Amino acid sequence: MVDVGKKPVTRRKARASVLIKMQTDSMTAIRKNALSKGDVLNTARLAGILAAKRVHELIPLTHQLALDQIAVEFEFEDQGIRIKTAVSVHARTGAEMEALTAAALSALTIYDMTKSMDKGMEITDLRLERKSGGKSGTWKRKRTREQS
Amino acid sequence: MVDVGKKPVTRRKARASVLIKMQTDSMTAIRKNALSKGDVLNTARLAGILAAKRVHELIPLTHQLALDQIAVEFEFEDQGIRIKTAVSVHARTGAEMEALTAAALSALTIYDMTKSMDKGMEITDLRLERKSGGKSGTWKRKRTREQS
Amino acid sequence: MVDVGKKPVTRRKARASVLIKMQTDSMTAIRKNALSKGDVLNTARLAGILAAKRVHELIPLTHQLALDQIAVEFEFEDQGIRIKTAVSVHARTGAEMEALTAAALSALTIYDMTKSMDKGMEITDLRLERKSGGKSGTWKRKRTREQS
Amino acid sequence: MVDVGKKPVTRRKARASVLIKMQTDSMTAIRKNALSKGDVLNTARLAGILAAKRVHELIPLTHQLALDQIAVEFEFEDQGIRIKTAVSVHARTGAEMEALTAAALSALTIYDMTKSMDKGMEITDLRLERKSGGKSGTWKRKRTREQS
Amino acid sequence: MVDVGKKPVTRRKARASVLIKMQTDSMTAIRKNALSKGDVLNTARLAGILAAKRVHELIPLTHQLALDQIAVEFEFEDQGIRIKTAVSVHARTGAEMEALTAAALSALTIYDMTKSMDKGMEITDLRLERKSGGKSGTWKRKRTREQS
Amino acid sequence: MVDVGKKPVTRRKARASVLIKMQTDSMTAIRKNALSKGDVLNTARLAGILAAKRVHELIPLTHQLALDQIAVEFEFEDQGIRIKTAVSVHARTGAEMEALTAAALSALTIYDMTKSMDKGMEITDLRLERKSGGKSGTWKRKRTREQS
Repeated sequence: MVDVGKKPVTRRKARASVLIKMQTDSMTAIRKNALSKGDVLNTARLAGILAAKRVHELIPLTHQLALDQIAVEFEFEDQGIRIKTAVSVHARTGAEMEALTAAALSALTIYDMTKSMDKGMEITDLRLERKSGGKSGTWKRKRTREQS
Repeated sequence: MVDVGKKPVTRRKARASVLIKMQTDSMTAIRKNALSKGDVLNTARLAGILAAKRVHELIPLTHQLALDQIAVEFEFEDQGIRIKTAVSVHARTGAEMEALTAAALSALTIYDMTKSMDKGMEITDLRLERKSGGKSGTWKRKRTREQS
Repeated sequence: MVDVGKKPVTRRKARASVLIKMQTDSMTAIRKNALSKGDVLNTARLAGILAAKRVHELIPLTHQLALDQIAVEFEFEDQGIRIKTAVSVHARTGAEMEALTAAALSALTIYDMTKSMDKGMEITDLRLERKSGGKSGTWKRKRTREQS
Repeated sequence: MVDVGKKPVTRRKARASVLIKMQTDSMTAIRKNALSKGDVLNTARLAGILAAKRVHELIPLTHQLALDQIAVEFEFEDQGIRIKTAVSVHARTGAEMEALTAAALSALTIYDMTKSMDKGMEITDLRLERKSGGKSGTWKRKRTREQS
Repeated sequence: MVDVGKKPVTRRKARASVLIKMQTDSMTAIRKNALSKGDVLNTARLAGILAAKRVHELIPLTHQLALDQIAVEFEFEDQGIRIKTAVSVHARTGAEMEALTAAALSALTIYDMTKSMDKGMEITDLRLERKSGGKSGTWKRKRTREQS
Repeated sequence: MVDVGKKPVTRRKARASVLIKMQTDSMTAIRKNALSKGDVLNTARLAGILAAKRVHELIPLTHQLALDQIAVEFEFEDQGIRIKTAVSVHARTGAEMEALTAAALSALTIYDMTKSMDKGMEITDLRLERKSGGKSGTWKRKRTREQS
């Protein structure tokens, strides 16, 4: 594990996103809260938040971080549901993995709760959108043609 | 949580896959085991295995499963590394989420260990490939043109 | 830890309940889903379910159980919200602690999400309602005058 | 999860209590350390301490806190055993949930270890007694007639 | 992780032991229960039991086991305290790692609670004593001269 | 749990070591990476790192620490493999237990991955080598004749 002991504690932020592609029927069922397993999006949000707090247990070489904030939001798109996460922390190292892991577990929870309708869903485009803070400063994903 | 108490215990299997897209340089560094954080693929495999054993803590409405096997394999493709997972269990419910979660955490661990070189990596095409066992029997992903 | 190795695997069930007493205003805010922290009851249900799956980590001398079902329900009463839990399992030992712990953590989560309005809430009457299965058979709480 | 990133780190304390009501025989057995499962109160204390350190995993919207202290004490009363907990921390948010959760898990552990004698025990009056620190300052439970 | 899916479920047992060597004064303080951190041996026993239930999270390639029994005992010897553990399970694979891990964490907990007196304690001779059940049958440690 | 709230946050370090004694054949198999379970030393290192991050869950009276660094190294000796760990942290209390627990779990993981060849391996001489930081300052193990 990288030694972060000589880095200063600074405010660090990270944002990530992921798309879970699904059939229109599945999206409608989620929107209408019509799935037997309960409220999909709220459950997915909580799974993302809980996972972000346990990244140091899940990804071997990460440091323990006491996050100041974890936010998980959902947007309905044509192909599926886009999940956007944002985390912030005062720490000696960044929280990129926390934002990405929150997005991944939110998407997996949507899959779990919807899979009786649609096992073919795909989780795609899980990526860091932006990070700030720390010595390496701010990083932003470049918009590519595919994404526009 | 769905009541599985009246379902019989049967042998169930699931396979999933995911692609982590990255620059050629990053792939080369992983292949040559040249990253300062250590052996990326072995670490990613272990993260996937450990995550599969804890799915019931991470995805709220899943049941605890004592998996018989968890396998995680890597294939180098043009665009990045394809991760393939396979799990099996004797249980009253399937292990699809275990296969998918193992794939997701393996990919996130590759991201973590390689991100100092390449923050733009994307984790994509996380999907169930096949499941068998249980009342609903065998399900296989249909091959689409994009995937061929 | 008691040796349960010679007991047969049987179907076992347990039900528990708890009351979280609160001001009428707090109950109204929960019912109307008007709290800034989000959907209180769904979050509380999930916290109860997740806690039931981890009882063996929390209560030292309990055995690991792979629960078949965990249900958490809420009833609005004059004084507050009654939480009712039910669990079932095929195992060599009972799941009373899982039902009780699910109830306790659901109540604590309601407290957490509502405490900005009302720190004086009390969690009370956490009790086993009924258990069945195993050598000791069925046990039901006796109705006492206070409870009628 | 509420963003606490702009709040200052201050010393915060919280105290909670709970009563586990039981038959006189059960209390005597605990006092005399005569239960087959071992030393009930020491085990309950440790369960409370361990639970306080894991509140962020158990209650979805809580922040991770590195507690400075967790204390769990027991008082024998006429009706049962009163558990009193106290926690303190340097943090951007309070530790009320840690004090309450420690009390709840201590009480549940007493239940677990004594239930072979007395399944009718009730866990009651779980409540915050006092908190201090942070912008909202000190809060103390008002003494009501019932409690005097 | 080795595939155990084709092995039968059988009753399996394992026993391990470890010695924590310490100064006579430290042993006396533990025996007299005179350490400020509380009852050392009961706490160590519980730490061992809790650790045995979580081996699958701690040792990457182990399977999840729902143990039937975990026992931890202590013997005062001339050089220190010998810890003996015994576990049993109905499973497709053995529980050697559970017995060994229980012993290790019990010893580490004794170290933690006694270290203010004696940082030089050593944990030594952690070893499997015996295992039975499964295809490979019974294995017993050979007594060597050093151990007699 | 001891109240550390009045101690200052300082930089603290700890180093520990352990020896896992084994047959020459087992050492050779590990060195040549010839064991069916995979890369033993890398897996053991990760198990040690992951365990160090969870000491507060495993050893009841320890405080949660957000470690700055965890290092695990291996040296082949005549009798077996010596594991050396080093941790550092900014905290109000020391990280001795983290260094020791990392060493113990690394050794147990080597045992697990090699036990099909050699169940008689012993884990021995687990000890603190050095600690620094905090009011009690630096402590170093005295070299004894046996160790020279």
